[in-house]
Amino acid sequence: MSQFGFTLLHTDPHSQARRGQIQTRRGTIETPVFMPVGTLGTVKGMLPETLKEEGAEIILGNTYHLFLRPGHELVARLGGLHQFMNWDRPILTDSGGFQVFSLGKLRKITEEGVRFQSHIDGSSHMLTPELSIAVQETLGADIIMAFDECIPYPSTRDYVASSTALSGRWARRCKEARRSDDGAALFGIVQGGMYADLRKQSAEELQEIGFDGYALGGLSVGEEAAAMYDMMEAALPLLPADQPRYVMGVGTPENLIEGVARGVDMFDCVMPTRNARNGVLFTNFGKVVIKQARYAEDPLPIDPDCDCYVCRHYSRAYLRHLYQNNEILAAMLHTRHNLHYYLGLMAGARDAIAAGRFTEYRQEFYRRRQPESAA
Amino acid sequence: MSQFGFTLLHTDPHSQARRGQIQTRRGTIETPVFMPVGTLGTVKGMLPETLKEEGAEIILGNTYHLFLRPGHELVARLGGLHQFMNWDRPILTDSGGFQVFSLGKLRKITEEGVRFQSHIDGSSHMLTPELSIAVQETLGADIIMAFDECIPYPSTRDYVASSTALSGRWARRCKEARRSDDGAALFGIVQGGMYADLRKQSAEELQEIGFDGYALGGLSVGEEAAAMYDMMEAALPLLPADQPRYVMGVGTPENLIEGVARGVDMFDCVMPTRNARNGVLFTNFGKVVIKQARYAEDPLPIDPDCDCYVCRHYSRAYLRHLYQNNEILAAMLHTRHNLHYYLGLMAGARDAIAAGRFTEYRQEFYRRRQPESAA
Repeated sequence: MSQFGFTLLHTDPHSQARRGQIQTRRGTIETPVFMPVGTLGTVKGMLPETLKEEGAEIILGNTYHLFLRPGHELVARLGGLHQFMNWDRPILTDSGGFQVFSLGKLRKITEEGVRFQSHIDGSSHMLTPELSIAVQETLGADIIMAFDECIPYPSTRDYVASSTALSGRWARRCKEARRSDDGAALFGIVQGGMYADLRKQSAEELQEIGFDGYALGGLSVGEEAAAMYDMMEAALPLLPADQPRYVMGVGTPENLIEGVARGVDMFDCVMPTRNARNGVLFTNFGKVVIKQARYAEDPLPIDPDCDCYVCRHYSRAYLRHLYQNNEILAAMLHTRHNLHYYLGLMAGARDAIAAGRFTEYRQEFYRRRQPESAA
Repeated sequence: MSQFGFTLLHTDPHSQARRGQIQTRRGTIETPVFMPVGTLGTVKGMLPETLKEEGAEIILGNTYHLFLRPGHELVARLGGLHQFMNWDRPILTDSGGFQVFSLGKLRKITEEGVRFQSHIDGSSHMLTPELSIAVQETLGADIIMAFDECIPYPSTRDYVASSTALSGRWARRCKEARRSDDGAALFGIVQGGMYADLRKQSAEELQEIGFDGYALGGLSVGEEAAAMYDMMEAALPLLPADQPRYVMGVGTPENLIEGVARGVDMFDCVMPTRNARNGVLFTNFGKVVIKQARYAEDPLPIDPDCDCYVCRHYSRAYLRHLYQNNEILAAMLHTRHNLHYYLGLMAGARDAIAAGRFTEYRQEFYRRRQPESAA
């Protein structure tokens, strides 16, 4: 606890954008930050050293996946998740809730928690707020998340209200369950679906409980971007300015820019890594879908303005060749480029906020995108 | 031509082992050398820079595969294979013969060449000695191979004799077909199956034609190791001492040590890279099959005596976890370790020959292997 903190360095005069630093027991994270997702103890296709070269300061681990494979206690016996995966910078773990709720008919929600069947072998498990916290602490994460229900979209107001209330009760149990001797920071998660008043209610309730930071959950679940931004605007101003704010599972480059403009400090999303493996590459001018025949003989790099390792050494034609032949190197190079883009987008935002020119940065972001590629 | 050469630095007094250097237009190769296989313009799962770090001085490209995908002319328009794949050290290409003959019923041999159907789309192609050389030159390889028939094992003496004669006529056509202005070295390939006298005949015929180096083909095709070594002993002493000798598609670590002892300078094999992707790891004490349950909680590296990046940072338990979950990083790390082992085995052999202690090196190799792991 004592090692965790947040320092607000700059606030943009024309938006809610914030430039800050999160202090953790494993070092400082410059915000706003994008956190690559390392589901099973690896950011797919990336060496830890390469992640660092590309500027990753914190990565995610997925509690649900690591709980099932290889098991959090095995990871602990091997020295914890950091040692297990050779990553000495901060790790944030989710609560497992999102994955469990994604199981659909394979899970059942009660006041106690969620009973679910493993997607791997069908074995039955009960995930409770207490177990989620214990698993995350056992893994050795530096920032852990309260266990909540990720509300499907669309949902009725009644469903959202009762689910948000349940998540509130679970949040309290998470706070009580945490080990006093564990140095991890615990974040609460604001729910409330697409209802601004329920978001507000949730944000207030969580602050009464008191957390080290606050996240917005249940976004990027199928709603329009405008609804997402509305929910950010409804909830973020209610959260304490001197603590970090995290929007979970978000999002597109545009979502990140708009989230920063609304005061978000932390983002995570599988988009840059998953899209990379599917041959969809992010650039300042929009997406490049590398399998397209137009790239078959294209000697240009993915993005002629990009200075990443991939763009310095490889043509679109080569990357398309690798992708068409399912070469491992395609996933490696595409992931590296996409993370360079996402991490660079955030680094640029940090510099812009510090220099008082975030509005220009945001305008430039839209100006450079070609119309057909706009999200 | 003028840039290609071979310098014999040391000869082991107690065996035929040779320490030498091959000069190419793209730099010097220390021999004996192991050449990692980069079938489709990538050594699967390895960055070119990582290959260099692990000591690779030359890699292979497969003419058959590159001819079909993405096509040699496309590669040439993009600056040649080196630029295409970001590799500035020497490349050796095979002739395409091995892959074409592996197609079985999809190919038909005539005096002119081989008509075959693409394994990808069934399209019909004719590969001739002339086309093989043109494709290899077009790719920009530094060492190119004569087009020959890789004789199946077992085969009758009559079949081997007539096939070897055909390969001899094709070898002559390859020599005539090569462009005088191309700087690539051309190697002939000794055939003769498992018949020592036919090997001898082939070796003599090829020398009459005259090549920059000589390879032994048609080994490691299912024969006993003893038969392979017999063929090396039959053919290698007949080849010119001042030119490099290459045994194609070989082999296990034991095959490499025994090949070196018999005077082989160059090896290539998919074994370290393909086995890596299948979770089979090479060590000084034998193979580690990483999926085995015994490694589930094993905190040791693959090989406690290995100083490679993988063994310095990752446990068997972590690698097993990655492998069991089909993580890309498993292929990356396993390939890196296995190539480190193969390249290190050859570096050790070079040092040992230079120091006049190759016999001890060979004994030590066998002494360290555990009985159950012996090949």
